[in-house]
Amino acid sequence: MRPSRRAPDELRAVSLERGVVKYAEGSCMVKFGDTHVLVTATLEDRLPPWLKGQGRGWVTAEYGMLPRATLERTRREASAGKQNGRTVEIQRLIGRSLRATVDLQALGERQITVDCDVIQADGGTRTASITGAWVALADCIGWMKTRNMFKGTAPVLRDNVAAISCGIYNGTPVLDLDYAEDSEADTDANFVMTGDGRIIEVQGTAEKTPFSQDEFLALMELAKKGVARLVDLQKMAVA
Amino acid sequence: MRPSRRAPDELRAVSLERGVVKYAEGSCMVKFGDTHVLVTATLEDRLPPWLKGQGRGWVTAEYGMLPRATLERTRREASAGKQNGRTVEIQRLIGRSLRATVDLQALGERQITVDCDVIQADGGTRTASITGAWVALADCIGWMKTRNMFKGTAPVLRDNVAAISCGIYNGTPVLDLDYAEDSEADTDANFVMTGDGRIIEVQGTAEKTPFSQDEFLALMELAKKGVARLVDLQKMAVA
Amino acid sequence: MRPSRRAPDELRAVSLERGVVKYAEGSCMVKFGDTHVLVTATLEDRLPPWLKGQGRGWVTAEYGMLPRATLERTRREASAGKQNGRTVEIQRLIGRSLRATVDLQALGERQITVDCDVIQADGGTRTASITGAWVALADCIGWMKTRNMFKGTAPVLRDNVAAISCGIYNGTPVLDLDYAEDSEADTDANFVMTGDGRIIEVQGTAEKTPFSQDEFLALMELAKKGVARLVDLQKMAVA
Amino acid sequence: MRPSRRAPDELRAVSLERGVVKYAEGSCMVKFGDTHVLVTATLEDRLPPWLKGQGRGWVTAEYGMLPRATLERTRREASAGKQNGRTVEIQRLIGRSLRATVDLQALGERQITVDCDVIQADGGTRTASITGAWVALADCIGWMKTRNMFKGTAPVLRDNVAAISCGIYNGTPVLDLDYAEDSEADTDANFVMTGDGRIIEVQGTAEKTPFSQDEFLALMELAKKGVARLVDLQKMAVA
Amino acid sequence: MRPSRRAPDELRAVSLERGVVKYAEGSCMVKFGDTHVLVTATLEDRLPPWLKGQGRGWVTAEYGMLPRATLERTRREASAGKQNGRTVEIQRLIGRSLRATVDLQALGERQITVDCDVIQADGGTRTASITGAWVALADCIGWMKTRNMFKGTAPVLRDNVAAISCGIYNGTPVLDLDYAEDSEADTDANFVMTGDGRIIEVQGTAEKTPFSQDEFLALMELAKKGVARLVDLQKMAVA
Amino acid sequence: MRPSRRAPDELRAVSLERGVVKYAEGSCMVKFGDTHVLVTATLEDRLPPWLKGQGRGWVTAEYGMLPRATLERTRREASAGKQNGRTVEIQRLIGRSLRATVDLQALGERQITVDCDVIQADGGTRTASITGAWVALADCIGWMKTRNMFKGTAPVLRDNVAAISCGIYNGTPVLDLDYAEDSEADTDANFVMTGDGRIIEVQGTAEKTPFSQDEFLALMELAKKGVARLVDLQKMAVA
Repeated sequence: MRPSRRAPDELRAVSLERGVVKYAEGSCMVKFGDTHVLVTATLEDRLPPWLKGQGRGWVTAEYGMLPRATLERTRREASAGKQNGRTVEIQRLIGRSLRATVDLQALGERQITVDCDVIQADGGTRTASITGAWVALADCIGWMKTRNMFKGTAPVLRDNVAAISCGIYNGTPVLDLDYAEDSEADTDANFVMTGDGRIIEVQGTAEKTPFSQDEFLALMELAKKGVARLVDLQKMAVA
Repeated sequence: MRPSRRAPDELRAVSLERGVVKYAEGSCMVKFGDTHVLVTATLEDRLPPWLKGQGRGWVTAEYGMLPRATLERTRREASAGKQNGRTVEIQRLIGRSLRATVDLQALGERQITVDCDVIQADGGTRTASITGAWVALADCIGWMKTRNMFKGTAPVLRDNVAAISCGIYNGTPVLDLDYAEDSEADTDANFVMTGDGRIIEVQGTAEKTPFSQDEFLALMELAKKGVARLVDLQKMAVA
Repeated sequence: MRPSRRAPDELRAVSLERGVVKYAEGSCMVKFGDTHVLVTATLEDRLPPWLKGQGRGWVTAEYGMLPRATLERTRREASAGKQNGRTVEIQRLIGRSLRATVDLQALGERQITVDCDVIQADGGTRTASITGAWVALADCIGWMKTRNMFKGTAPVLRDNVAAISCGIYNGTPVLDLDYAEDSEADTDANFVMTGDGRIIEVQGTAEKTPFSQDEFLALMELAKKGVARLVDLQKMAVA
Repeated sequence: MRPSRRAPDELRAVSLERGVVKYAEGSCMVKFGDTHVLVTATLEDRLPPWLKGQGRGWVTAEYGMLPRATLERTRREASAGKQNGRTVEIQRLIGRSLRATVDLQALGERQITVDCDVIQADGGTRTASITGAWVALADCIGWMKTRNMFKGTAPVLRDNVAAISCGIYNGTPVLDLDYAEDSEADTDANFVMTGDGRIIEVQGTAEKTPFSQDEFLALMELAKKGVARLVDLQKMAVA
Repeated sequence: MRPSRRAPDELRAVSLERGVVKYAEGSCMVKFGDTHVLVTATLEDRLPPWLKGQGRGWVTAEYGMLPRATLERTRREASAGKQNGRTVEIQRLIGRSLRATVDLQALGERQITVDCDVIQADGGTRTASITGAWVALADCIGWMKTRNMFKGTAPVLRDNVAAISCGIYNGTPVLDLDYAEDSEADTDANFVMTGDGRIIEVQGTAEKTPFSQDEFLALMELAKKGVARLVDLQKMAVA
Repeated sequence: MRPSRRAPDELRAVSLERGVVKYAEGSCMVKFGDTHVLVTATLEDRLPPWLKGQGRGWVTAEYGMLPRATLERTRREASAGKQNGRTVEIQRLIGRSLRATVDLQALGERQITVDCDVIQADGGTRTASITGAWVALADCIGWMKTRNMFKGTAPVLRDNVAAISCGIYNGTPVLDLDYAEDSEADTDANFVMTGDGRIIEVQGTAEKTPFSQDEFLALMELAKKGVARLVDLQKMAVA
């Protein structure tokens, strides 16, 4: 039985609250149970140097954790003088995930930066971040539409994107690991998927015992269900 | 008339919400109008090296701003690789302010780190931080009391500490500047005071036109009123 | 047809040359076609601070590229003052992959650091690194055995580990992408597997078009074949 | 009685020696007793990026301490890789203080950088720095006048600026604390004032015991006297 | 007798292998006995900012050591976040040595960057680097000639450059110190010379006992012989 | 003729003023004409980690330039976040030069740190630094003697150390280059020698035209004369 008494294919309570920061073009407070992430989307009229003059835009992400988001305080990265490896990995993942669903040509020569800051961490911060980031991004693109900033008629945002973790806990494949499960689970996989069920990113890791292909497929089945539910929640949120 | 239509000696709507982060020994979401700061207090059984073995504890603070807390996005300090001068100044001020009211001997050989993270900035982030930090600190010390962590009977927290800004806006001394006023005001002063009306820290700055002693005293009068009101709100919050 | 005229399930010419650096406890020059990586394994009698006194050892990895390993010179990370995000991601992946097959208890309180330095890069540097790193690691553990450094009889190295990339190139799933393919392929996945065919790590990414579950399974089939062949080559190398 | 046997309102021996570095447009060796600071003013035809094209100039300051300016050697900031918080605070204060008295419009699109390097530190390095910096700045502006670099007739330097510290030592308010007093004093305040007695910056701090408004006013009275004397000395120096 | 049983004026086995990295405009694997350095020369159409628009080119060098090039693993500079003092010294020396023999006017407004990466270190890495760097540089300039990139007829590369170390080992002046000798020798000198026997750079150091002028001259005699032999080998290599 | 009208073998006016910083165990303001360097020697009861418990002490040096020591302001290294290559080279040279004349065994397990800070730079800052550093070091060792800090009778400081530059200016070998000569000279050599005329360090560099052995010997002759004169001045200074 899971520590949280959830069924194996049961998500934690998920909420997506929009408009939580008044200055941002899009923002979302996303909660997966006790994991809380504040996401903002910022539109800027500038591009990374290597992208200038190509008629395309860019979407990028940054990720951070407040020092006491965790059980024990972690050192503030700004004071340590650099982002650690885990932070870098996660923010690159969020950026790639969002870009896979945006028509960068249609976006035009602008950059949207999505900031995901973890207020409270109870496992699954990267999947919550991606799921909330899509909402903030959608609101930012909506903000631009309202101001007639797009020339063409092609949809800038082609589909939903959401993410969920799965793992094998005490021999059973379970959905949406919280910290208590995550720290025990042998196998841990994160799936980023689109609204139509296709895969954007898969990351499966076995820190201790390697897993079989069948185990991996079981996790993928769970993930599909979870993402479908998250996409429904996103649709309700932005409706 | 002030942009917010407040009276010259009127604070913004202030709220102090406790217990907002489940892991922290003390926490507080403080709001001065549209300025929102999340404060956590962390107790640790370690000390800075220069303080070891002296029978005293330490209270220190760190300050940060989420990138999109501001009208325009500011660069994430963790990615820039260092804290900027303003950040360093503010976190030193918060630390000094809190230490002035804690009996470090009575605290024992432990460190409390107060993290102030600005979620939304509309002027006065340092004064809101100090005011909220006192609440988080008080809760942390309460948490320790509950666990019988203090030997003596001397109060560890000797008094309240709160802070407010004042300035001369359009020739009139006003209390608790918001961003619209702050960016226009010629003179800007921050006062950190105790519950009994004494001064812990005063910082008055004239970026353009120097000010007279009388103007400064007028600001100090306003500040006393404001701090008294904030101390009342702190007392209600922790009651 | 592939630019290299290889069959879809054909690896590049792979070689694993041992003993290439005289000081290292284990070393291997691994070549996947024009991708050349020099790997060394270093044994040290020290541990990361958080692991001390637990009776277990550690295996970690660092990765780097010589500035002119690439078509255009890339900036030397030592002179830039930090490792970039891609480097950090890859070295974490190599470390996790190796640890999954080492009995850290049996290793004892020691650390093995595996350094993977890319001399020439033509795609697949992370998979070549992992495949060669296993050989250097095996030699390092052999070096320790010769000196009777292990007490128990449990095998320290439980299985082989090798890695290969796959991708969908011009609509066809292909094995072991070189740079010409990698820069064109829409979907790109790296598989790290053991000698007995189980999965240690899977990373699948769609920078542009999301992929279906069937496409992903086709890649996994190719990967199994490729890894089996690499494991054979490892066995011949260390025989 | 003060350790130096000075009267409560007595400054240390102050000297302001001009022209001490042959390359600088302005320079001054300022001594407040055993506190010695070398100040240079550098004129440059460039501006911070955010100020370009606005028809205004800029005055900024940097501060440093030679490693053995102090009783015990302090680590060289260039070798530590960053300026510490105290350094950053002080150089920002010096810059603001000087800007308050310069007509940036009249200065034109140029930057003056004032470097304050402490050769020997016996308390009051920031106030000595500001007082000497004004002399170096005045000489730099004089150098520009001689070369007809200003178009208008408005005075570029509107008034003198000098600074002094005060504190409560053994219960008595005293002027111009040296290190022996500073390390004992409970309350410590720095005042930056103009030649006509107005305030540019006030910073009062109570590290241990909060102070009353009356105590603060007593310090301000002392400071006025001290600054008036310093301004006289500046006038003699540049005459 | 020398640990390696070489005669006092005998070089280690030297080899210069060209074309070892397929992307580089010039490359060389240089071996002085067990000291192995991989050198690449990169041509770029850009210049350091201070050199722009002067009709001249630039040659610069960077130096690095793989972590396990040495008996004990040294920390990776990219992960330490900076190049150490020894690295900086050596790469500046290599750059100056190469520039002394290149006609920068004839090179035109381009930069050649020479990267020297030590694969295995057994003493004399800087002299091996310079000797191999000349070969890579010569190949890079040859590559440019083949593409008719030079307008004039003046030779761009005016002469050979090679370098060798000498030292006093057990009282006898010896040529080309290996690590066993270097760590024992009292006096250690590096000579960089041209093909016609003139001096580009001399560095003689006595860490313990100062040396006489006669001792220094004896080292210089040895060095001349050694460099003459190295220049012969360079000529054979590029023939 | 030299720009300064000096004879080829004529030093600039040299002065060595002791006791210029009241806290330091030894200090010296050294002037070679318009090159002014402030040197302090600091005694500390600590050692670099790699030297602990070996019964020997250490002498090390740090070097810096005030930003406006030069004709144009150079960026403050503390604010740039690192010491540049030239600084690192020079401070390593000063450290080696001083260590060559100190009996580290006799010094005992302590460290002397010599700080050389250039107040004004007109060429030859490294040679002036070494020459003045010896005086500060001698005073520091004298300070220790006075306090009976040495057990044995062996002299801790075995000989004088002084340094001078030479170069070929307009075809003539000249002594003690100032900036006007240094920026024109083709060949530039620095000699560090002991009081008895032996060599500690030689560095000869030809940025443009290589030099012959005879030219180098002519420079060495000049250097001997110059160092002899500097050693006389050191002896007078510490007498």
